[in-house]
Amino acid sequence: MLTTRFTERFDLAYPIALAPMDPASGGALAAAVSHAGGLGLLGGGYGNHEMLEREFSLAGRAAIGCGFITWSMARDTSLLDRALAHRPRALMLSFSDPAPHARKVTDAGVPLICQVQTLEHVQRAIDVGATVVVAQGTEAGGHGFDRQATMTFTPEVADYLAARSPSTLLLSAGGIADGRGLAAALMLGADGVLMGTRFWATREALIHPNAKALVVKARGAQTLRTSVYDIARGRRWPAEYTGRLLVNDFIRQWHGKEEALAAVQPEEQARVEQAYDGGDCDCANVTVGQAVGLIHDIPSAGEVVSAVARQASALLHREPVAA
Amino acid sequence: MLTTRFTERFDLAYPIALAPMDPASGGALAAAVSHAGGLGLLGGGYGNHEMLEREFSLAGRAAIGCGFITWSMARDTSLLDRALAHRPRALMLSFSDPAPHARKVTDAGVPLICQVQTLEHVQRAIDVGATVVVAQGTEAGGHGFDRQATMTFTPEVADYLAARSPSTLLLSAGGIADGRGLAAALMLGADGVLMGTRFWATREALIHPNAKALVVKARGAQTLRTSVYDIARGRRWPAEYTGRLLVNDFIRQWHGKEEALAAVQPEEQARVEQAYDGGDCDCANVTVGQAVGLIHDIPSAGEVVSAVARQASALLHREPVAA
Ligand SMILES: Cc1cc2nc3c(=O)[nH]c(=O)nc-3n(C[C@H](O)[C@H](O)[C@H](O)COP(=O)(O)O)c2cc1C
Ligand SMILES: Cc1cc2nc3c(=O)[nH]c(=O)nc-3n(C[C@H](O)[C@H](O)[C@H](O)COP(=O)(O)O)c2cc1C
Repeated sequence: MLTTRFTERFDLAYPIALAPMDPASGGALAAAVSHAGGLGLLGGGYGNHEMLEREFSLAGRAAIGCGFITWSMARDTSLLDRALAHRPRALMLSFSDPAPHARKVTDAGVPLICQVQTLEHVQRAIDVGATVVVAQGTEAGGHGFDRQATMTFTPEVADYLAARSPSTLLLSAGGIADGRGLAAALMLGADGVLMGTRFWATREALIHPNAKALVVKARGAQTLRTSVYDIARGRRWPAEYTGRLLVNDFIRQWHGKEEALAAVQPEEQARVEQAYDGGDCDCANVTVGQAVGLIHDIPSAGEVVSAVARQASALLHREPVAA
Repeated sequence: MLTTRFTERFDLAYPIALAPMDPASGGALAAAVSHAGGLGLLGGGYGNHEMLEREFSLAGRAAIGCGFITWSMARDTSLLDRALAHRPRALMLSFSDPAPHARKVTDAGVPLICQVQTLEHVQRAIDVGATVVVAQGTEAGGHGFDRQATMTFTPEVADYLAARSPSTLLLSAGGIADGRGLAAALMLGADGVLMGTRFWATREALIHPNAKALVVKARGAQTLRTSVYDIARGRRWPAEYTGRLLVNDFIRQWHGKEEALAAVQPEEQARVEQAYDGGDCDCANVTVGQAVGLIHDIPSAGEVVSAVARQASALLHREPVAA
C-alpha cells in the first residue's frame, strides 16, 4: 500500500494512473490497471463511437475512467455524453481548453481530471472544477509542449496549487516508468503519477508487437518532439503541441521539412497508415517518451503496477539513504 | 545529516555540490558551500589565470574544488596545473572530451568529476577514471544538450553505472533547487545533487543584483536553450551545446536569426558586455535554468545548503506518504 490523497479520493491501492493513450489504452489495458489497484483510463483519443463502445465493453465491470483529446472530441460532443453514460470513475480532458465541456462532467458527478502543460492551464483547470490536475513534463511520450520538464514543473505546480487551490490533487506525468520515478514524483509534491510509455510497453496495449520490441532496446536519447506525423495524418493540433516519438526513418526524412511534407500529405498518410497496420516501424509512428531508456521488458500491466509500487515503497521506506 | 556514498567519499555533511559556474561561483560562494557542509566548486570557467588566483585566495582555507569548461581550458592547460597546485578537493571537467586532461588530475591524486549529457559521455568518464559523474538534464541552467531531462537521464545513468562501473558515484544536475529536488534525485538513484541556478541566486554569487532580482519573480517556463549569446560573445562552443537562459529582449531579437547576428557580432558583443556590467538584463545574459520557478529569495549560500538538506531529510523520513 502506498497511501496518498489520490489513493484515498479514488479508493486505489496505489497512486498510479494509466494515461488514456490513443490508441494503446484500450478496455483490456484500462481494466488491468484498475484491477491491479491503479486507476485505468480508457483512451477515447480523437473520438470514435464504435471504438469507444467496443473498448468500454471489453473493460467489463472494471472501475475505469476515460480520457479525450479535447479539441478533437469537441467536433462531436456526443462522444463525451456516451462516455459519461458509462459512469466512468473519472473523465480526463487533455490538450486545449476544458471549459466548454467541464460542466457536463462535473454535473454528472464524475471527477474531472485535466492534463496541463503550463501554470495558465493549471488556473483554467481550477476554474472549471477539476478534481485532479496532471502536470505533464516535456519528456512525456505523445503530445505536449516543449517547455518544461517534470523535475521543475511538478513542484512549481504543487506550489501553485498549495497557494490557490490546496484541495486539488496533483499527478505528475512525463518520464516516469518505475518505482524510482514514482518515489521521486511523491518527493516533488505530487499525489501520484500518470504513466503512458511504461504501460504502452505491456502485453495488453493495443500496439503492434514490432513496435513494442523496438522500445525494449531503445535509449532515452532516441526520442524527439516533432509535428511530422500530425502533418502526414492531417491532424490539426493546436499551436505549440508537438508529439514525442522514437526517431525513425520517417522522422529523419521529414523533420525540418514540414512544408515539403504537407505538399505530399495524402500519399504520405496512406504510406504511414499502411506501415502502422503492418508494424513497419521505420515508417510508422512509435509514440513513446524518454522513459523508453528505463524499459527492458513487455510484462502485463498488472505486473507493472505491482512492480512500480513495490519498488517505490521500498525506496521510500529505506533507512540507509538518509540517516 | 544525509548520508550517501558521496558524502562518505568526500567527507561532507550533505550530498550537495555547487556547480562551478562561470562567473557566479567565485571563491566566496565556493567556500560558503563547503563551510555549510556541501562541496563548493570554484568556477574556473573559460579560464583566466588572474581570476583563478584571486578566487582561490578569496576561498581561504575552505576545502573547495574547481571546475573548468574543458574545450576552453584546453587552449591553455597551464590553468589546470595552477588549479591542481591548490590541491583542490575535486577537479571537475565539463563540456567536451575529458580524456586529454584526466590523467593529470588523477595522477595528482585529485578526485575527477565529469559532467555528462549522454551515455557515451558516461562511458568516456568511466574510461578516464572519473570518481564522480554528474548527469546533467536539459532543464539545467547554462550550457548543455537539448536531449534528455533529469527525470529520465538520472535513472538511466544510474542503471548504466550499476552494470558497468558500480563504484563510480552519480550526482544529478538540472532543475534541482530545493529539498524536494534533492529527495527526488536520491530516489532516482543519484548519490547527491549538483545545483547551479539555486546557488546563482544567493548573496555570495558574483552576479549583478538586478539579475538576481529578476529571477526571484521568474517562472520555470520563461527560460529557453539558445546559442545567441555564444555567437554574440564569439565563444566557439562545440556542436550541440546550447545555453539555457531567461528569455529577454536580446533573445527575442536574435533567437532564430543567428546568421544575421553573426554578421554584426563585434557591435553586439560590445553592447552585451556593457549591458552585463551595468546590470541591464534586457540585453545582458541571465543564465539560469527551469529551476527559477522554484526560487523566491536571495539567501546566503549556507542557508540554501541547510534549507535544502533539512527539507529533503524531512521528506525522506516522513511516514504518512507511504503507509
Ligand atoms: C502513445 C501515446 C499516446 C498518448 N495519447 C494520449 C491521449 O490520447 N490523450 C492524453 O490525454 N494523453 C495522451 N498521451 C500522453 C499521456 O497522457 C501522458 O502525458 C504521457 O504518456 C506521460 O509521459 P510518459 O509517456 O513518459 O509516461 C499519450 C502518450 C503516449 C505515449
Ligand atoms: C550561470 C551558470 C553558469 C554555468 N557555468 C558552468 C561552467 O562554467 N562549468 C560547468 O561545468 N557548468 C556550468 N554550468 C552548469 C552547471 O554545472 C549545472 O549543470 C547546472 O547549473 C545544473 O542545473 P541547475 O542550474 O538547474 O541547477 C552553469 C550553470 C549556470 C546556471
